[in-house]
Formats: sequence, C-alpha cells, structure tokens
Amino acid sequence: MPKISNKGAQMPESPIRKLVPYSEIAKKKGNKVYHLNIGQPDIKTPEVAMEAVKNIDIKILEYSHSAGFESYRNKLSQFYKNQGLPINTEDIIITTGGSEALLFAMGSTMDQGDEIIIPEPFYANYNGFSTASGVTVVPVISSIDTGFALPPVAEFEKLITPKTKAILICNPGNPTGYLYSQEEMMQLAALVKKHDLFLIADEVYREFTYDGDIHYSVMNIPGLEENAIMIDSVSKRYSMCGARIGCIVSKNKQLMATAMKFAQARLSPPTFAQIASEAALDTPQSYFDEVISEYRERRDTLITELNKIEGVTVATPKGAFYCIAELPIANADDFAQWLLESYDFNGETVMVAPAAGFYSTPGVGLNQVRIAYVLEKKDLIQAVQILKEAIAVYNAK
Amino acid sequence: MPKISNKGAQMPESPIRKLVPYSEIAKKKGNKVYHLNIGQPDIKTPEVAMEAVKNIDIKILEYSHSAGFESYRNKLSQFYKNQGLPINTEDIIITTGGSEALLFAMGSTMDQGDEIIIPEPFYANYNGFSTASGVTVVPVISSIDTGFALPPVAEFEKLITPKTKAILICNPGNPTGYLYSQEEMMQLAALVKKHDLFLIADEVYREFTYDGDIHYSVMNIPGLEENAIMIDSVSKRYSMCGARIGCIVSKNKQLMATAMKFAQARLSPPTFAQIASEAALDTPQSYFDEVISEYRERRDTLITELNKIEGVTVATPKGAFYCIAELPIANADDFAQWLLESYDFNGETVMVAPAAGFYSTPGVGLNQVRIAYVLEKKDLIQAVQILKEAIAVYNAK
Repeated sequence: MPKISNKGAQMPESPIRKLVPYSEIAKKKGNKVYHLNIGQPDIKTPEVAMEAVKNIDIKILEYSHSAGFESYRNKLSQFYKNQGLPINTEDIIITTGGSEALLFAMGSTMDQGDEIIIPEPFYANYNGFSTASGVTVVPVISSIDTGFALPPVAEFEKLITPKTKAILICNPGNPTGYLYSQEEMMQLAALVKKHDLFLIADEVYREFTYDGDIHYSVMNIPGLEENAIMIDSVSKRYSMCGARIGCIVSKNKQLMATAMKFAQARLSPPTFAQIASEAALDTPQSYFDEVISEYRERRDTLITELNKIEGVTVATPKGAFYCIAELPIANADDFAQWLLESYDFNGETVMVAPAAGFYSTPGVGLNQVRIAYVLEKKDLIQAVQILKEAIAVYNAK
Repeated sequence: MPKISNKGAQMPESPIRKLVPYSEIAKKKGNKVYHLNIGQPDIKTPEVAMEAVKNIDIKILEYSHSAGFESYRNKLSQFYKNQGLPINTEDIIITTGGSEALLFAMGSTMDQGDEIIIPEPFYANYNGFSTASGVTVVPVISSIDTGFALPPVAEFEKLITPKTKAILICNPGNPTGYLYSQEEMMQLAALVKKHDLFLIADEVYREFTYDGDIHYSVMNIPGLEENAIMIDSVSKRYSMCGARIGCIVSKNKQLMATAMKFAQARLSPPTFAQIASEAALDTPQSYFDEVISEYRERRDTLITELNKIEGVTVATPKGAFYCIAELPIANADDFAQWLLESYDFNGETVMVAPAAGFYSTPGVGLNQVRIAYVLEKKDLIQAVQILKEAIAVYNAK
C-alpha cells in the first residue's frame, strides 16, 4: 500500500472543525448550540453583489486572466486609493480567497526549511499553509496581559536566523482582535528592512475597527515598498466568505512576477465570484456603517457579559470580530468537548474554539478560548450566561 | 532588498501565455489571429448551469463544507455510477478546479525531493504544480511515431527510485489526444502495485473520445483502490473553465483524510460555481452528443488539412481536443513568435503553442507544436492554410 507524505501527516487539523463531530452529538440530543466558534458572519451579503451575478449574460463561462479581470483590478485599485492606500492595478493579483494569496506569498518568498516568524496566538490555518509550503513557523508569544500587543521587537530579533524570510501579522488580529498601532507597524518595518525580510500583513479585517482607531496598513509605510506584502479578501468585508475571492498586493515587482507564475499554473480565479466582488465595490457606505455599528455593540455586549464571570480574563478587541478569553478551567479542549457532549442548560449549550490550536508553542493557551461575536446581542447574552453556568458545573465535577 | 524563493525562481512560465505579448503585437498591426494555442472551448455552457446561478436565493454567501456541498457530492457520485465508475460520496472532495485537486494529490503523497514519473509531452502546468510542491518530475518520453502510446513499462521501471512516489497520466491526453487502452491501464496498475506507488489519473477530458473507443478510468481497475487517485473537473465537460470546480477522487481513506486537511486549510471551494456545477449534472445527453460530434468533425478536418502540408507529421488524436504536430521547421518557439510578430497572410495569422514547453527533457519536441481544435471547421481550414503558407515563407527566409 502506498504511503502518504510526511507533509500530509504533519498537516494540522483545523482546531475549529475538529469539534464538529461533538456538535453533531449535541444536536442529536436535541440541544440548541450557540456557535461562538466560527468566523462566518450572519451579516447579509450586499444586494449589489448578489444582483450582479443574477444579471450576468454569459454564454461561455471562460477562464479569466490569471491575475483576475482587469476591470476588477482597476476598480479595486481605486477602492484602495480612496482608502488612502497607494495601490495600482499592477500591484494586485486576484486570488481564490485570502487563503490562496497566503500560499502564493509563502511560495514566492520561502523554500523548504525556511522560517516565518508569527506573533501567536494566530489564525490557525497559517500552520496549515506553512506545512503545505514546507515552511517552519517560529512563534513569538503575545500575552493576554498586554491585550495581545506586539511583543517587543527584541523578542523577534533574537529569533531571526539566516533561514528567516518573513514576518507574518494579522491586523486587526484573528483571533485576538488586536489592532497594531502606527508605532508598532513602524517598529516592524524597521526590523524587516534591517534584516531584509518580507513583512506579510493579513489585513482582511481592515474595516472592522471600533474605537475610532485608524487602521495602519503595511502598504502605507514609506520606504517599505520592496518588503511589504498585503493579503486581502472579500470574505469578511462583504460577508462573502463563500465567494473565495482575495488578492495579494505588493509593489515589489519581482515578488509579483513570481506570484504571477503560481497564478498562471492554476489558470484563473473563479469567474462568478469575481463578478460579484467587482460589483460589491459599489456597496454604499451606509452598509458598512451599519455593520460596524452592529459589531461594536456586539463586542461591547460580549465583553461586558464575559467580565461578569468570576475568573474570566478577556482582552477587549479593537478590531475584527473575535476575542480571546481566559477561563477558570484547566483545559479548554476538554471543556469545549464536554460542553457539546455532556452539558446543556435547559436544552441549550455553546460551542467555543479552544485557543491552543491558535498557538504554535505547545502547552500555551490551554485555558483560553476564542469567541467570535457573529451572533445577535440577545444570543450573545444568553450564550455567555450558559458559559457561566457551565464553568461552575464543570469545575464542580 | 528581500529575496524571492528558489522555488519561485524555478516556477516555469506558462508556455501558452508567454506568447501573449507577441499576439498583442499582431493585433496592434491589425492582423486577425486564429487561436490554435489555447484550450478554452468555444462551446456554450449548458443553460441549466447558468440558470441555476441566476435563480439563486441566497442572503448570506457562506462558506460551504470544505469537501464541497454534500448535495453536490451525492449527485456527482450518482453521475459517476451512471458512467460505470464505483465512486461514493465519501470518495470525493470538491476542489477549486482540477488544478487544486492536483496540488492536493501531490501534497498528500509527496515530500520535498520526491519524484513523480510522467509520460511526456504532458500538460505544462504539471511542471508548475510539481515545482510548487517541491517535487521532481521524472519524464518518460512518448513518441509521435507511436501516436504517443504508453511507453513500454520497462521504461518506467528503470526510472523508479526510493524517492518515486507516483506516476501521473492524463487520459485522454493533453497535449497528445492519446487515449490509453485498457491493456495499457492494466500495465500501469501492475507496475504501481508492484512498487507501492500512487497512480494519479487526470481524466478531465473523459467524455471527449471520438472513435467508439471506451475510456478506461483508473477508478475501474479492480484491486487498485489504494493506489488510484482520479483528478476531474467541470471545465471541459460543460465548457465551464471559469467556474474553477474540480475534484479529487480516491478510495484510499488515509489519502482522502490527508487531502481533507489541505481542503480545510483553504476553507471551501467557491459557492456560486458549486451551484452551477451541481445543476450542470442535469445537462441533457443531447448536449454531449452535439459537442462530441462537433469535435469529431473538427478533429477530422484539422488532421486532413494538416496532412496536406508537406513535411508535417501528426498523430491522430483519439480524445480531448488537441494534437501534437511535427512541422518542417527547426525551432517552433522561434516560428510561433515569428508568426505573430512578423508574418501575415492577407492580414491574418495563427497562434500555436510550441510543444517544447510540454516536455520536461530539454531539447525534445523543438519542432513540434500543440494545436487545439477549439475553432469552427471553416476557421480551422483557413488557419491551417495560413500555417502552410507561413512554413514556406519561414523556410525561404
């Protein structure tokens, strides 16, 4: 019998999806499950995007250009310029989700055995993309005590080896909700320039900031043109996760020419979804105002409710729609499974994502969970109430 | 300035797309270009597929399951069973094009430095996917003299090393149009079983056979369940290249569990395109009868016309919609460029794909071109007429 690859054996299982069998058990028992575990927003996709697809008049569903439709790239460039980001059409390659943009970025900058430094906790699939690319993740621990602020640059610097090729950040952060300040971005910029590294910034949550803080993009750092790579996506911006449209953005010509070779090998990004994404750029500002206002209220509700539970520590997120909460329990993996398999509060329970899967360092974050505030406020209140009761029952076992 | 990866530097440029700048020159000069170079069919996409997308009633464009919609996988399983292929729902993971299925297959079976044996000439992007996966392509030359039949198994066997993990075939073949016989498939099956290798069969042209020959799928070989991996796609079957929907199929549970981890990392295949692809399964048989009949006539026209040119050798394709033609010229790269840059016949010229890019062995196939018969018969006749005149002019230079 032929053997699977070592790489395949090492591919991590998604920390979010591995609890799915237990949620099936909860549902079979007739329990209602509040999903605090996933990043699938309940926000409606802009009608202008859905209508564009319904109104298409195409006889042959052809390949698009490997870099994506030029009309879409032009309009996207203008969208970025309106946001104050100096991004031209030729700086953009449309990808199949932010996922593919990350794979292109890693493939274009790193070889087998090379190292990428990532502040943890981080988006769990960075592990998967790194393993698939043969790249080693070197984590820098950021702490809940500082609200997951950027660790001191000295912590990064002492991890840099000749194999280090890039630093990857998610800003605002999934799973932390942390928004890097301009000062932090400038520190990172100085570091990558000093060591000739790429700075890859996953900015798919760019619009989701709540306290008047300004998002400071990697594309806005003067002099960083050759080092900066931005990852973007329509998934969260327009609640279009199923479109699978993202992009890789850089002013580094050699990097973009290289990414283009990866793009050509897979022919083109999906056509229907590009049409929807191009149309989505006409989404009125009122849509975003409503969405951000809704998320801000949800965040405030969630944090207020979580803080009512004794022994819970939570860092108030400044952006995205997640937070990391430290619970008064020993093992969040076990607790999350127990919540689904063995617990209910009047026929209801909650599903959370154990945070250990968001850390690369073993044994860190064992008592933490990631909570996504993608539910309505009243559901969030009820879900946290259940969590509170459950912690008491679990610890009294 | 940070450096790009060695892998990125080694990524091959698409042999089809690298001529595009010269076709722009031809068009700027006002010349009409007959595109014999690309595999983009001019056949209409089934209305049932396009209508399904126009009629969707979705409020939130959510992620689908990482393996694809279950309803689609169920219906696809039934489609395969109707074709005599014993494929169950759990044997299928829906991918973003056949491209992603190939990447998942390589990632799941091979590590950096491992080897894959591929009969050449082969689909040029196999080179790109191999480079991206850190895998070394070991070619076995198939010859135009045998119509690109399977090289003797002894030729494969002497290339097998401890690093060999798989044999990859395209059946029917792009760029050769060759259809492997049952006997050839059984020879390959015995070989991969003997050496514990995977046999990856890219069968995206399965329906396109012209002489009453039966396509013999890798999924139909008794006892090969653990070794067989099938790659499929909707791109050619339904003229839906822009959908970007394919699948990886295998009965090997460990392989599928591994591919699933790659699938989870990228979250899901595109939703709109899955809806179109599921609906496309209801395409009436009359659609295929017409399409196959049209391609058969085009093939016969093309081969008849090519055989009228002195010094041209062409292997009659049994399937797909390409052929490899050997021309009475020294260097097809130079000739193809010259056709676009410097030649016209009454304001018209042709674009062909130099075949060297479909070989991995340097220096082979230099006088060959790949011709796709994706044009109407009258255009094919005119294009070959231009080719004939051009060869005479080129050789008289």
